[in-house]
Amino acid sequence: MIKNIENTLKVANKAFEYFQHGLATGEWTEFLEMLTDDFTFWFPMGKFHGLNQGKERAKEFFQYVYESFPDGLNLTLDRQTSNETTVVFEFRDEGKLFGQPYKNRVAISLDVREDKICSYREYFGSDGKSY
Amino acid sequence: MIKNIENTLKVANKAFEYFQHGLATGEWTEFLEMLTDDFTFWFPMGKFHGLNQGKERAKEFFQYVYESFPDGLNLTLDRQTSNETTVVFEFRDEGKLFGQPYKNRVAISLDVREDKICSYREYFGSDGKSY
Repeated sequence: MIKNIENTLKVANKAFEYFQHGLATGEWTEFLEMLTDDFTFWFPMGKFHGLNQGKERAKEFFQYVYESFPDGLNLTLDRQTSNETTVVFEFRDEGKLFGQPYKNRVAISLDVREDKICSYREYFGSDGKSY
Repeated sequence: MIKNIENTLKVANKAFEYFQHGLATGEWTEFLEMLTDDFTFWFPMGKFHGLNQGKERAKEFFQYVYESFPDGLNLTLDRQTSNETTVVFEFRDEGKLFGQPYKNRVAISLDVREDKICSYREYFGSDGKSY
């Protein structure tokens, strides 16, 4: 069990590093390579609201994120919790959404299967305007 | 360290049980008794948006929750993650908000100090209308 937890943390931390890189730069290749073929994600609002299925849908989403934040979105990680299969990251982010100042508090919950991410859920802690 | 994690889980699970009871019934006494005097919480939107400080503010908030959901709000716990001081609960809830059907996906992150909750952060995973 300890071994599983260690692997889960290692894989999720690597994915989060690539996620952070993707948000900052718009380069999502490394993150997308870590997703399983049956990957799913949940998003709180907008055109990707609810359950999204498959890597192609994920590609569309991260392209949309890049178009929304062309100057990048910078993350500050506040906290991490985990169990045998899941790691939750609580962070703040800051950038410009279509040119307007944007700030939010966010939690993402990543599910790990072997050396990949098979699912994640995103949650918003604020309104995009302040922490 | 293992001992700390066990205590953190025990205290957070007790608090979550009282939180769930409060949402279902409007009875918040047991949950409020578990909060430290310097308790703080963050809420994503509305009149309690942002950082809220103190037990009195918490009382006002849970009174407001009760007035918003007078028939109660029922929770389904999906997932729990933890570290030495913090436990995150991912759940779905369902009820009637001022009489209208309400559904959301939520994450709350509880910080434990000794046998109390000293802080929590709430995050929304959906829009209050669907999961």
